Amino acid sequence: MYKIAVIPGDGIGKEVMEATLHVLEAIDVVFDYTFADAGDEYMEKTGVALPRETVDIVKASQACLFGAAGESAADVIVKMRQELDLYVNLRPVKSYPGTKCIFDNLDFVIVRENTEGLYIGLEEETEEGATATRVVTRKASERICKFAFEYTKKTGRKKVTAVHKANVLKKTDGLFKETFYKVAEDYPDMELDDRYVDATAMFFITKPEMFDVIVTTNLFGDILSDEGAGLVGGLGLIPSANIGENQGLFEPVHGSAPRLAGKGVANPSAMILSAVMMLDYLDENNAARKLENALVEVLAEGKVVTGDLGGSSSTMEMAAEVRSKLEEYN
Amino acid sequence: MYKIAVIPGDGIGKEVMEATLHVLEAIDVVFDYTFADAGDEYMEKTGVALPRETVDIVKASQACLFGAAGESAADVIVKMRQELDLYVNLRPVKSYPGTKCIFDNLDFVIVRENTEGLYIGLEEETEEGATATRVVTRKASERICKFAFEYTKKTGRKKVTAVHKANVLKKTDGLFKETFYKVAEDYPDMELDDRYVDATAMFFITKPEMFDVIVTTNLFGDILSDEGAGLVGGLGLIPSANIGENQGLFEPVHGSAPRLAGKGVANPSAMILSAVMMLDYLDENNAARKLENALVEVLAEGKVVTGDLGGSSSTMEMAAEVRSKLEEYN
Ligand SMILES: CC(C)[C@H](C(=O)O)[C@@H](O)C(=O)O
Ligand SMILES: CC(C)[C@H](C(=O)O)[C@@H](O)C(=O)O
Repeated sequence: MYKIAVIPGDGIGKEVMEATLHVLEAIDVVFDYTFADAGDEYMEKTGVALPRETVDIVKASQACLFGAAGESAADVIVKMRQELDLYVNLRPVKSYPGTKCIFDNLDFVIVRENTEGLYIGLEEETEEGATATRVVTRKASERICKFAFEYTKKTGRKKVTAVHKANVLKKTDGLFKETFYKVAEDYPDMELDDRYVDATAMFFITKPEMFDVIVTTNLFGDILSDEGAGLVGGLGLIPSANIGENQGLFEPVHGSAPRLAGKGVANPSAMILSAVMMLDYLDENNAARKLENALVEVLAEGKVVTGDLGGSSSTMEMAAEVRSKLEEYN
Repeated sequence: MYKIAVIPGDGIGKEVMEATLHVLEAIDVVFDYTFADAGDEYMEKTGVALPRETVDIVKASQACLFGAAGESAADVIVKMRQELDLYVNLRPVKSYPGTKCIFDNLDFVIVRENTEGLYIGLEEETEEGATATRVVTRKASERICKFAFEYTKKTGRKKVTAVHKANVLKKTDGLFKETFYKVAEDYPDMELDDRYVDATAMFFITKPEMFDVIVTTNLFGDILSDEGAGLVGGLGLIPSANIGENQGLFEPVHGSAPRLAGKGVANPSAMILSAVMMLDYLDENNAARKLENALVEVLAEGKVVTGDLGGSSSTMEMAAEVRSKLEEYN
């Protein structure tokens, strides 16, 4: 039995969470859920977006499923990443059948540093305007690069690419790049290279097959993972894992989508795939593969899918379909 | 007669420059060229990448054609932008016939702030690693937004989108966003909106038709314009204009491409289109349209084009073909 914190949050976050929990009931793994609050709605009621209690619940859990937060997203999710030291943000870019992918066979992963860079929160007003400090430490660079190499090895991938802008950010990204090559010395059999972030943004479109595992700093990872989402059919399909030494927090890359909220039409795939990442994190790999396959079958059939996937089913109808595939496997 | 500084620079910069000057001979505008040095090769000889003399030559000119610089690009081009206060970096994303575009009808423009942000050069080593300061001033934000609105009006475009990350960079990008909406008050008939940079990177792929003119800070403009290049067939096609109060500097977005250099096979289109932007900057709009049309004809026919465009012609053969189209118009 796993202790799991569940934070549905705002907007469609709540809907895709409900759908995902419904699907997870058909998985042969026992979860002990504790529900917790965070986001805009909670902030309207209480004045805080992320209560201490929620952080504590997550700290006491092995993993957390997180739906989405609205306007307060930065205050909720960025704070949570830092408080829990969830230093890895893992974002797969994978094309699934039945989705509007520009490329059919994409399968690479972005490993985003998740605790520093421009997300460190050091901004100041000045006479002329404002400044923000981008922090790159040796320690954080080392552990994220190490994670990237270990992940590559463990998953049987072949190549790690460091993405940076060291020609302009000579000291900060110079350090990141240097650290990458230093860590790489412990992995002599690994293919590796490095690219500028601007060139990478282009190659995602013109030569995406050159990427396998990408490791990069916080904001570059943010931008590139959304671009990656575009390549494989949009945010409705993209899960992510925030991983630290003690916890993992799993969330769709999409937000609370206020315009879709309350209609029951949101695509639950990104949240379901986030649950797949959670199962893998908990080393429940069989359950993870089953859940992923069930979703892939539903996507490939394209019959009981939401509007963004060309169907007309509701969030819960699509979830029920995934669940019934799962039940067939048992 | 216009005084033009010409900096071929390194690698394919020299080749596409030669090609472009050859084409420009068939244009009914008289140029007085002064050649100047910058880049890796010059640095090897002298120890400096950008000599004072070159900056002075550009300062004494109305415009500058710039090819490419190699490893020293940041020290050459970023320095030039700052020294000459070329505060606008204008980067069209336009699909031309005969090129490998993902989308056929793209036509939007990125207006990139060109003097500050993370390019300001304020980096420091610290005990733990290094920091970089991102500077956003009211003044620079105001003038770049003003330029974007004026440009939109002048070119008959309809909509301006500010791109930022104000949910995380609340002070710096908060200021940029606020300034955008303040400047917008002087343009009551303009359509406008704002987007997060990560979402923008996705929408470039999933809904690019939503963009018309984008205004953004320095590094975001750098990343997005390369992504835009990817959308319309790669860097071989993308020109750019660096514009200040007194000068314009026109350069392909591509670099010196060491692996292609010396073979005479580089696509001269981006440099030729940079010359088109120069002609427009000099208000030689007829000549600009003629030159652009001549290139478009050659691209559309797809017979005398370089390898990256599916042909087998050399840089100079393609240039000669563009020139002969031009001569037909006379
Ligand atoms: C909501 C926002 C603060 C967040 C980020 O920038 O990290 C989001 O875009 C993401 O990628 O998880
Ligand atoms: C060469 C490099 C410093 C430059 C930049 O980052 O501005 C280039 O990528 C560009 O976009 O002109």
